[in-house]
Amino acid sequence: MTDSAPKPVKYPTIHMQAGRERRVQHGHPWVYSNEVQMDAAAKAVAPGSPVRLLEASGKPLGIAAFNPHTLIAARLLSPDPAARIDEGFFADRLGRALALRQRLFDRPFYRVVHAEADGLPGLIVDRFDDVVTVQANSVFMDRHIDAVLAAIDSVLAPRALILRNDGTQRALEGLAEETRLVKGVIDGPIRLEENGVTFFANPLDGQKTGWFYDQRDNRAFIASLAKGGRAIDFYSYNGGFGVQCAVAGATSVVAVDRSALALENAARAAAANGVADRFEARRADAFQEMERLDAAGERFEVVIADPPAFVKAKKDLGAGCRAYRKMARLAARITAPGGFLLCGSCSHNVDPPTFAEQVARGLNDAGRTGRILRSAGAGPDHPVHPNLPESAYLKAIVLQLD
Amino acid sequence: MTDSAPKPVKYPTIHMQAGRERRVQHGHPWVYSNEVQMDAAAKAVAPGSPVRLLEASGKPLGIAAFNPHTLIAARLLSPDPAARIDEGFFADRLGRALALRQRLFDRPFYRVVHAEADGLPGLIVDRFDDVVTVQANSVFMDRHIDAVLAAIDSVLAPRALILRNDGTQRALEGLAEETRLVKGVIDGPIRLEENGVTFFANPLDGQKTGWFYDQRDNRAFIASLAKGGRAIDFYSYNGGFGVQCAVAGATSVVAVDRSALALENAARAAAANGVADRFEARRADAFQEMERLDAAGERFEVVIADPPAFVKAKKDLGAGCRAYRKMARLAARITAPGGFLLCGSCSHNVDPPTFAEQVARGLNDAGRTGRILRSAGAGPDHPVHPNLPESAYLKAIVLQLD
Repeated sequence: MTDSAPKPVKYPTIHMQAGRERRVQHGHPWVYSNEVQMDAAAKAVAPGSPVRLLEASGKPLGIAAFNPHTLIAARLLSPDPAARIDEGFFADRLGRALALRQRLFDRPFYRVVHAEADGLPGLIVDRFDDVVTVQANSVFMDRHIDAVLAAIDSVLAPRALILRNDGTQRALEGLAEETRLVKGVIDGPIRLEENGVTFFANPLDGQKTGWFYDQRDNRAFIASLAKGGRAIDFYSYNGGFGVQCAVAGATSVVAVDRSALALENAARAAAANGVADRFEARRADAFQEMERLDAAGERFEVVIADPPAFVKAKKDLGAGCRAYRKMARLAARITAPGGFLLCGSCSHNVDPPTFAEQVARGLNDAGRTGRILRSAGAGPDHPVHPNLPESAYLKAIVLQLD
Repeated sequence: MTDSAPKPVKYPTIHMQAGRERRVQHGHPWVYSNEVQMDAAAKAVAPGSPVRLLEASGKPLGIAAFNPHTLIAARLLSPDPAARIDEGFFADRLGRALALRQRLFDRPFYRVVHAEADGLPGLIVDRFDDVVTVQANSVFMDRHIDAVLAAIDSVLAPRALILRNDGTQRALEGLAEETRLVKGVIDGPIRLEENGVTFFANPLDGQKTGWFYDQRDNRAFIASLAKGGRAIDFYSYNGGFGVQCAVAGATSVVAVDRSALALENAARAAAANGVADRFEARRADAFQEMERLDAAGERFEVVIADPPAFVKAKKDLGAGCRAYRKMARLAARITAPGGFLLCGSCSHNVDPPTFAEQVARGLNDAGRTGRILRSAGAGPDHPVHPNLPESAYLKAIVLQLD
């Protein structure tokens, strides 16, 4: 950037169809392709370009990210029709998002940017102190990735910066997968903290994107119930739930996962927190292990089952719901009387009432009764746009069983 | 009770209609009147009596509380067909409910029994250390109130026990209102604690039932954001939100309510916690005060609006939703940029998505944008029956506004 006055920007102009503006006027950040005047000029706009969005009458609605080839044609970036979409724009949004997280948390470990809710459609930024990971899930963010990365470097000044472009959403936008170390060096797992407990993750080559801060509050809640009991953490990944239960005073914790790398991180976390003597990392398939433990008559005071998404596409909804019901049944069977069960789902195609119904059915299938103590979503560093309530993908239900 | 063996109990028998048993078999605790064989014998059962509930085939489903005159004809009490519904039954359920709360909380201030979810349909018990309040919201509980009170006395051994039978649910069951001091002496407000902060309430003659523990976690969350800012607490009642904000470090707090008695308790709480110099109790109508403050250009970093139910019956849904939308608009207007807004609703006729929609509309009406940081219900001492998800009446949405 130079010190000279910014040149006026001339973005392409996109008009909405008359009578289709109401949802946007009511604060919704998306415009569908059948709501804009998709003329030849509009069709010729390069995917991911900023445009000036106007009502049919010509009244400006603001600057939006445009893609003539996708169902969501425009995503609002700013209500200011003179907004410039450049490094300064990204740095401003990033600075506000960071200020909120610094208000929410004492330590520098959180999701810094959660897409639309932080005014940055399609962008995910996670912070592990001085290591930062970035996901660009839209063509717009992909096209502007250099400005985004420059803004992150200036606002967060990370030691290492990783572009982790391998989410399923990218495929929907026609974008290739790419994982790239943009800055710095990563040799081995990085250290992070959550609820005062130390963990390790592999942001560059882990099975997933390193760490999921979204369950932070749900981990704190179930850990607070684990003191003096035996806990088991299915789909443990890097040990988030299990190690926090051990630190909170569980007499024994088993972490079950199919990934050796994840279990290595979980065991390392147990050691770093001084609870290795009460912690076992067990490589197994979750359903098979639940069935084996039930047959062996083993019971646990705390059972956690927080799997990867069972429903990745709408067509899988039926099968996925049956899988959640089965998970709740098998997990309930090995929960001790009076014990606590957490069932999680990060499938955004399964809404909270549908998930709650699968859990209730699974309990009944297991012949168990109980009460829901907590139904919660992601923590506050994963905010939700007020007009996109369906983007709240995470569900955690904690029950006490009789 | 004597030491002799209990006599076998012969409760009336109620059969379900063939093919109508599925919901109950799936774990739902209610049976509707058109699902049972409502013959002359069934109609003659005294309302509120325990009955043996059977499938059409004669297979026992358990013991239920029966009322031939209400839409919900039977509420399951126990799957054990030999269960005796006596003081021992109530004491057992109460003991389990108490054990859960003792696990959840360090201090003896909580809801001890939350109706169906604790296996005691229609019963509400709140604990303020050695003062206990009881609400019986069903004919069954009303008929068994002596056994219930005896069980409470034996399990909780309170210094004072108050029957607070003035909820709106009682009218629906055809029960009269009654507030009665069953045991002990109450002279003036009682002391209670929530999140480590001291409060005062009038369980015998307060405008409501003394104190609402349901917002405990939501109060802790918004208070954690109040440090260094000005906070205002509309519909403050006894000061729950406002005083916790002051204790957490708000530079100034205004509590707004129409009840002089409630504001007296709030001011007394501020004094007891050493924050009287930063606390003002202001008697006013919430909407009028919001409009006045907006006109005067006053802005607050934390705005709380947690009103009594705007929708008390289904017919009021439209008007109530408009009132929530207006509340969100007025409250958003006086929220400072970057500030935090909590909108609450305890209307059980307004489901979470509908409430969220009113809040989103109100924000937009106010010309404000922002993000939802937290969408939560009641705390874990207000559990939910897994098959009655709609009984989760409380909604709290916390936003940061731009």
